[in-house]
Amino acid sequence: MKFVIIGGDAAGMSAASRAKRNNPDLNVTVLEKTHDVSYSACGMPYNIADPDRPIDDLVVRQATVFREKQGINLLTGHSVESINLENQSVSGTKDNHQEFTVSYDKLLIATGASPIFPDLPGFELPGVFGLKTLEEGRFIKEYLEKHQVAKVVIVGMGYIALEMSEALRARNIEVEMVKPRPELLPWMDNQLAEIVKLELEKNGVKLHLGHGITKIVSQPGSDGLNSKLSVISSGLVLEADMVITAIGVKPNSDFAGQSGLELGLNKAITVERNMLTSNKNVYAAGDCADAYHVVTGKKTYVPLALRANRAGWAVADNISGKKIELPGIVGTSVFKVFDLEVARTGLNVKDSIANGFDAAEVYVKTRSRAHAHPGSTPIHLHMVADRKSGRLLGAQMVGREGVAHRINAVAVALHSQMTVEQFVQCDLAYAPPFSPVWDPLLTTANQLLKNVQ
Amino acid sequence: MKFVIIGGDAAGMSAASRAKRNNPDLNVTVLEKTHDVSYSACGMPYNIADPDRPIDDLVVRQATVFREKQGINLLTGHSVESINLENQSVSGTKDNHQEFTVSYDKLLIATGASPIFPDLPGFELPGVFGLKTLEEGRFIKEYLEKHQVAKVVIVGMGYIALEMSEALRARNIEVEMVKPRPELLPWMDNQLAEIVKLELEKNGVKLHLGHGITKIVSQPGSDGLNSKLSVISSGLVLEADMVITAIGVKPNSDFAGQSGLELGLNKAITVERNMLTSNKNVYAAGDCADAYHVVTGKKTYVPLALRANRAGWAVADNISGKKIELPGIVGTSVFKVFDLEVARTGLNVKDSIANGFDAAEVYVKTRSRAHAHPGSTPIHLHMVADRKSGRLLGAQMVGREGVAHRINAVAVALHSQMTVEQFVQCDLAYAPPFSPVWDPLLTTANQLLKNVQ
Repeated sequence: MKFVIIGGDAAGMSAASRAKRNNPDLNVTVLEKTHDVSYSACGMPYNIADPDRPIDDLVVRQATVFREKQGINLLTGHSVESINLENQSVSGTKDNHQEFTVSYDKLLIATGASPIFPDLPGFELPGVFGLKTLEEGRFIKEYLEKHQVAKVVIVGMGYIALEMSEALRARNIEVEMVKPRPELLPWMDNQLAEIVKLELEKNGVKLHLGHGITKIVSQPGSDGLNSKLSVISSGLVLEADMVITAIGVKPNSDFAGQSGLELGLNKAITVERNMLTSNKNVYAAGDCADAYHVVTGKKTYVPLALRANRAGWAVADNISGKKIELPGIVGTSVFKVFDLEVARTGLNVKDSIANGFDAAEVYVKTRSRAHAHPGSTPIHLHMVADRKSGRLLGAQMVGREGVAHRINAVAVALHSQMTVEQFVQCDLAYAPPFSPVWDPLLTTANQLLKNVQ
Repeated sequence: MKFVIIGGDAAGMSAASRAKRNNPDLNVTVLEKTHDVSYSACGMPYNIADPDRPIDDLVVRQATVFREKQGINLLTGHSVESINLENQSVSGTKDNHQEFTVSYDKLLIATGASPIFPDLPGFELPGVFGLKTLEEGRFIKEYLEKHQVAKVVIVGMGYIALEMSEALRARNIEVEMVKPRPELLPWMDNQLAEIVKLELEKNGVKLHLGHGITKIVSQPGSDGLNSKLSVISSGLVLEADMVITAIGVKPNSDFAGQSGLELGLNKAITVERNMLTSNKNVYAAGDCADAYHVVTGKKTYVPLALRANRAGWAVADNISGKKIELPGIVGTSVFKVFDLEVARTGLNVKDSIANGFDAAEVYVKTRSRAHAHPGSTPIHLHMVADRKSGRLLGAQMVGREGVAHRINAVAVALHSQMTVEQFVQCDLAYAPPFSPVWDPLLTTANQLLKNVQ
């Protein structure tokens, strides 16, 4: 059997490696557009923060290891442009402009996602960057080295944008952020988002909310060498030496859709719980594919690394004759904003209502350590439940410690379809350096219970 | 109705406060032996570590608040000595040697636990301390101030003993620890216990395992003032200026047992899921009572603060006419040993086998942060599951970060009776500063799954 994989990042290489582990005789071919495989994309802001660390530190496994140690036919510089579902083949162009066609018995599309570039003038200018592939990370880092970058404007305020603001401030670069919508983090409870906002401002990041961007223009710098960029938005002109766009990503599903495969939410490739697309010989996994949301039972699009790896494994196992079905995701994520940990899982109030739940919510400010224990800092929590069923639906947290890993307890509760009443009875860990006797999650759930009953 | 509570610590005062909140007209009397109520007992080692912090910092709520603001009839210095179940009354002696008798409609026994003192010569000597009540904490702190304590011997190596070793080292006091059994933490996987051992030794704590203690003797110090203590054990004599005994606690259930109430495991007072004892008008809660273990469905004795608070609330709610049943505990705990976080939940291999499970186990060493992220440190995990049902049974963790709160995800999984197969599918949080893509819990569960299937 010939197993062909389009895309050599998280989902693709996880699938390739596991397929070979499952069955060393399997013919596994990976077609990767770039020359980078298996790297920590999420680590890029942290690498960019440090001029002394080479970007290739982020490579987890070299291409040669996949080829020589694992026996994977890894073809880099191979850009797939079309799939022929009837003939079971994929075609495209190599780096050297030669065309290629590869036939498959089973195909995995793991093409990932790309940063969304606004269709506006100037976003193609030198000095304007997105950040998704290692190549883009490399370009940003090289640009920072070769140019005198004193100030960067970041368009967008999602988690990559926020991580980049921290990375650039660590290099002592002035950072301004601009976005059209008036909310910093629209999915987040206002009271929690306000804490994040204060942290950004405290660290010298200037936020410009509610400014619709119209274009970017370039003009030669006073030194005649480094050109200056101007981000023009409604009522605001921001000068910059560099612009980073981080307004979200879109699934790389163009040729999948053109081949006739079904696309769904956000034009992500529609997959079943076994990762099969609408064609019985074609799987999709990672940021190009959708997923089931465990809380709603409906489809969702949340492009994150863990799901990509897990889905890659599931495809490999299914190719190998196992019957693996992934229950889905609950939308857990965490990120760092300077000294803050910001985490979420499940649904917020808006999504809860949109999905037909009778949403009850609670906001609680508590503390990270026990009464009278030194070093305690505030933790802010927001939690949502369904009045009808009593089910816990989601949680959000912001704090200086004890947030990133604490959210996982709620994630597991969501996977178990726990009610708030069941959750408040959970035997969570307590010691004075790590939490109050009643863990912040329990304190919040205790309050929420009153609103549910 | 007259609600009488024996004991004014976690369980007792939680019950009293909640009973008054539920029903402000209720007649609530608390009989407390000491003059301290509502303090953070678990915070004592951390308070003792700092000579500049008064021990009364640990008091969460003053007695006057309970009396004046909450209308609780709080009687301190009232030592209960007997219960008359037939007459529904309790009797005892006050500080001033006067006897008292109080009648009740509903009674809560919340007498807590006391440190076990070995029945050996010398444990009654001045300079030999246990640590459970605030009074004992105060005595230790006063002794440290008034005497030149250069070296302390700690008898026992449970979590209070380990926390005390850290507290004393923080005051630059030499610490030696001694115990009869050869294992540092008998409930813990060897490989994890070894990491804890190295951390103690690295911080200058000398460990003497496998030495059965025979007695403590006292002799005048060379200055004729400060007497020196010698802890005599098999093949070893340890000199000390102070001795702390921390070999575990026993429930304060003597007069409860004498009154005819049923005692169970460890002589803890037997309670049902609604906290009722074998008498329909008498409840017990906190460290004097037993609990159901959610994983085994059997009785267990784990005296910890969260359960005490929760059980106190449950009693108050049941007194007020609600029907509250606590599902039980899963044995979650966490403690700090210098720079290490040590956590557990559920069953270890030995307990799993003793409870009839077909135990599969796995040990995994992984890391606290993503590939190439700076500051990553090792995390050591041990996980147990049942081969027959596939159920997750327990986990243990040791590491420098990301342990204390991470254990809660497993605790919730145990409450949900999750299988390992279900647990590995949980959507846990990932960001490079906080974990690898596959959370250490998932990496370990993925390995465990191979041993279960």
